[in-house]
Amino acid sequence: METIEIRTSSRTELVDITAKVQKAVSDSGIREGVCFVYTPHTTGAVTINENADPSVRKDITMEINKVIPFEDGYSHLEGNAAAHIKSSLFGCSATLLVDKGGLVLGTWQGVFFCEFDGPRNRRAHVKVLPG
Amino acid sequence: METIEIRTSSRTELVDITAKVQKAVSDSGIREGVCFVYTPHTTGAVTINENADPSVRKDITMEINKVIPFEDGYSHLEGNAAAHIKSSLFGCSATLLVDKGGLVLGTWQGVFFCEFDGPRNRRAHVKVLPG
Amino acid sequence: METIEIRTSSRTELVDITAKVQKAVSDSGIREGVCFVYTPHTTGAVTINENADPSVRKDITMEINKVIPFEDGYSHLEGNAAAHIKSSLFGCSATLLVDKGGLVLGTWQGVFFCEFDGPRNRRAHVKVLPG
Repeated sequence: METIEIRTSSRTELVDITAKVQKAVSDSGIREGVCFVYTPHTTGAVTINENADPSVRKDITMEINKVIPFEDGYSHLEGNAAAHIKSSLFGCSATLLVDKGGLVLGTWQGVFFCEFDGPRNRRAHVKVLPG
Repeated sequence: METIEIRTSSRTELVDITAKVQKAVSDSGIREGVCFVYTPHTTGAVTINENADPSVRKDITMEINKVIPFEDGYSHLEGNAAAHIKSSLFGCSATLLVDKGGLVLGTWQGVFFCEFDGPRNRRAHVKVLPG
Repeated sequence: METIEIRTSSRTELVDITAKVQKAVSDSGIREGVCFVYTPHTTGAVTINENADPSVRKDITMEINKVIPFEDGYSHLEGNAAAHIKSSLFGCSATLLVDKGGLVLGTWQGVFFCEFDGPRNRRAHVKVLPG
């Protein structure tokens, strides 16, 4: 298990961690298998989406902030209830396939850490199972 | 594969199953690997979120019931279409890492069965792969 | 790793790929383990939900198109920003358990490719780890 460090700079943000995940896969020495990216935070998430046009990331954060508003009569007193809800909708882990030592990604796919309550220092664990 | 039994008591509810999942991991005897929690129900889900302040769970269920209302002109005649939709948004499985025989969880993370069409008797399977 | 080909016929659609995933599991020769279904597209997803009443699929697509509208002031110029958002909410992979050579599915569960920007030719990879 390898741990990635991530520094986010906005309240809501998608940070491209594809290269860091690929490095962890390379470090594992595993050529064929499955890679799991897991974040131990309850107001963040991990997702896979387009890494070519940055406007896609902008649209994702804009729209999710509209669907799950920052303020909506929540009970949780820390003021970040919306971030917890977004975390469960996006999910705190992603699963990727590994082939010939590399992540099996579509042409436009990248791996992103989703910040929903930043800016903060965040982490994600990467684990690879051979097979 | 071990199966967890869950009794839910409300129409929408997040039930903390962390201890049961950890027990299944311990029973497996696997010290390092990946743990999969899978529920075979189409109106429930599995998620990872904060287990410290119960108001987080309350906010999650309140908000998701607002975003996906119980009644919204659905076609499905059983009256639980909203529960099916929520199940796909949260996902019927969760992936966790296992280190030194324990689940790798963040300080505030717990594993929850999400009931969207209760109360009912529910199940979740736990499988651990070594590696 | 085996690759499934999928032809979608609508802009938004859930296509049942359960039999194709099961065939890939059978082809792997693995009797006990975990099966991963991964789609390399950023405007599609993979989900598990009811495969008995087709109205459930209809309700899922109707409601997600209402929650994440096709037009909502998005920045992405290709006109499919909504599809990218839906992809991250549903997730581009699904995890299933394998027991006695078969997918461990609930009575009503099937595996679906989610088309959010069709019609198109799509693919999903299936990988099985023994254990």
